[in-house]
Amino acid sequence: MRLPVAVDGMGGDRAPSEIVAGARNALEVGHEVLLVGDPARMGDTGPLEILAASEVVEMHEDPARAVRTKKDSSLVRAAEAVRDMKASSMVSAGNTGAAMAAALFRFGRIKGVARPAIATVIPVPGAVPTVLVDSGANADCSPAWLVQFAQMGAVFSRVRLGVARPRVGLLSIGEEPGKGNSLTKETFSLLDSGAAGADVEFIGNVEGRDVMSDAADVVVTDGFTGNVVLKTLEGSMKFAMNLVLGALAASGVDKSASDALIGSLLPLAAELDPETYGGAVLLGVDGVCVISHGSSSAKAIANAIGVADRAVADRLVEQLAAAVSPAG
Amino acid sequence: MRLPVAVDGMGGDRAPSEIVAGARNALEVGHEVLLVGDPARMGDTGPLEILAASEVVEMHEDPARAVRTKKDSSLVRAAEAVRDMKASSMVSAGNTGAAMAAALFRFGRIKGVARPAIATVIPVPGAVPTVLVDSGANADCSPAWLVQFAQMGAVFSRVRLGVARPRVGLLSIGEEPGKGNSLTKETFSLLDSGAAGADVEFIGNVEGRDVMSDAADVVVTDGFTGNVVLKTLEGSMKFAMNLVLGALAASGVDKSASDALIGSLLPLAAELDPETYGGAVLLGVDGVCVISHGSSSAKAIANAIGVADRAVADRLVEQLAAAVSPAG
Repeated sequence: MRLPVAVDGMGGDRAPSEIVAGARNALEVGHEVLLVGDPARMGDTGPLEILAASEVVEMHEDPARAVRTKKDSSLVRAAEAVRDMKASSMVSAGNTGAAMAAALFRFGRIKGVARPAIATVIPVPGAVPTVLVDSGANADCSPAWLVQFAQMGAVFSRVRLGVARPRVGLLSIGEEPGKGNSLTKETFSLLDSGAAGADVEFIGNVEGRDVMSDAADVVVTDGFTGNVVLKTLEGSMKFAMNLVLGALAASGVDKSASDALIGSLLPLAAELDPETYGGAVLLGVDGVCVISHGSSSAKAIANAIGVADRAVADRLVEQLAAAVSPAG
Repeated sequence: MRLPVAVDGMGGDRAPSEIVAGARNALEVGHEVLLVGDPARMGDTGPLEILAASEVVEMHEDPARAVRTKKDSSLVRAAEAVRDMKASSMVSAGNTGAAMAAALFRFGRIKGVARPAIATVIPVPGAVPTVLVDSGANADCSPAWLVQFAQMGAVFSRVRLGVARPRVGLLSIGEEPGKGNSLTKETFSLLDSGAAGADVEFIGNVEGRDVMSDAADVVVTDGFTGNVVLKTLEGSMKFAMNLVLGALAASGVDKSASDALIGSLLPLAAELDPETYGGAVLLGVDGVCVISHGSSSAKAIANAIGVADRAVADRLVEQLAAAVSPAG
């Protein structure tokens, strides 16, 4: 029997309504879902199976403290459902730090993994998306951790995106080996000498402009830099789209021309929309935890549930465990 | 008598032709220019005053070694012209690291400055541009250096962009004081306790998406993160523009509608074009050094010469010296 995906019904800026709607949509297309939260606050949950949880971790709470003190929160109960084999995996659009902490404390780490890392899928129009890892779990990193991120990122690119032999780049500020800060220089030496093993094809340093390009399949970085890159990309793409829409309104082109242009931009916008990819995955914990954007809509949640289900079917955790060599 | 701006005639991907053209354009609009380079290789330099230099620092040479060994390079001679009071300031579109090293070794540092930093002007449509500092000079930084970057960035925003009381933000991965890596957390404490002095209005942490917004006038970060942000922005804006042009071509809108739209996008594109801003400025050295993008056109060089001339007229270096408190 297939286990359901545990969904944190109370986490996210648009919870619970969009979360419940997304869970119902996923159920309708054949996913098994266990919705976790306070039944009195989640509205019409229809045929969804419910796991009651009375508390809510707020978006700006201290992650470790929230997980420690709110034992009956939807987030903690979702993680426990996975630990207790009542669910195959979990999805949350709530407090990212708390979701990581809940998964880490309740699942434990994969043997040999020093630190779990967040893998985010960055759309690249016309090409396979880029995996950015770590995109926010670990603000301060050691070179050995980054070597593991390379190993885990390569597995993720292969399993999730079907890249047979992912090219792994190290995010730095110049392509030459000597460019970067002390962390990237030491990491470069390790990766270049094959510390990540034969399954990681290290292609050297890449730069910020390469993240949205076909230059690499996996971009490895510390969680501080990765998160800054992610938010810079989000901001600039939103900014560019607003510019274009503003210019379109001001240009005086007639409605049919404007509609035609918007019609050809929409598929691109959909391809670039982070919601299409359904959220980031926490790599290195002993279970599947999908972390959706805080502003997730029903569509994003439904996609995240699909991602979680596929990761379980593809035995992502087992494949990560097989690929990681213990950090020095 | 006004001293000329020394221009490195041989530095940049499009040197010497675009550099010479830019220098001539600047001369025509009233700037004094001293073009530095090999007369035999710079083509028709017209009425430009020339300082002969036989060597060229290539784009990918090791900066410190290049400056040490190529004593008769256009870059080193340009810096020496400033040191020897034959020029007021210098402009180079060549090897960024070498330009920094030449300025640092030949000008020296402003008293009390621990490390010079690069200030880049990021366009924000409809609002005053944001100053990003450090955008690439120091890959590894201490909190005390970042406090000085805040002081220098505030002076630069005031002098260059006319912001009476610049709001200074610290680039991090969340707005709360506790968010970030060890560097940003320590820097936050220092800035929040007033270590940068009463002239720096510290507004707390900002995120990657705020760099292109009106959220702060100055964004302080280490040179690694700053350079990654800059290249991510460059890449994503170019990417977005290509998407729009592609969509326009594919949309089948008629030529007049398409022209109208492009006509209303062009002023925005010009406002977003880094060339409009004429290059970054190295803050903290005892002289004015403007570092232009490697791909600088004649227009970018002419603008950079204007920036250098204005920085001298506005006594930028003296104002920086007055604002910086010695780093602990």
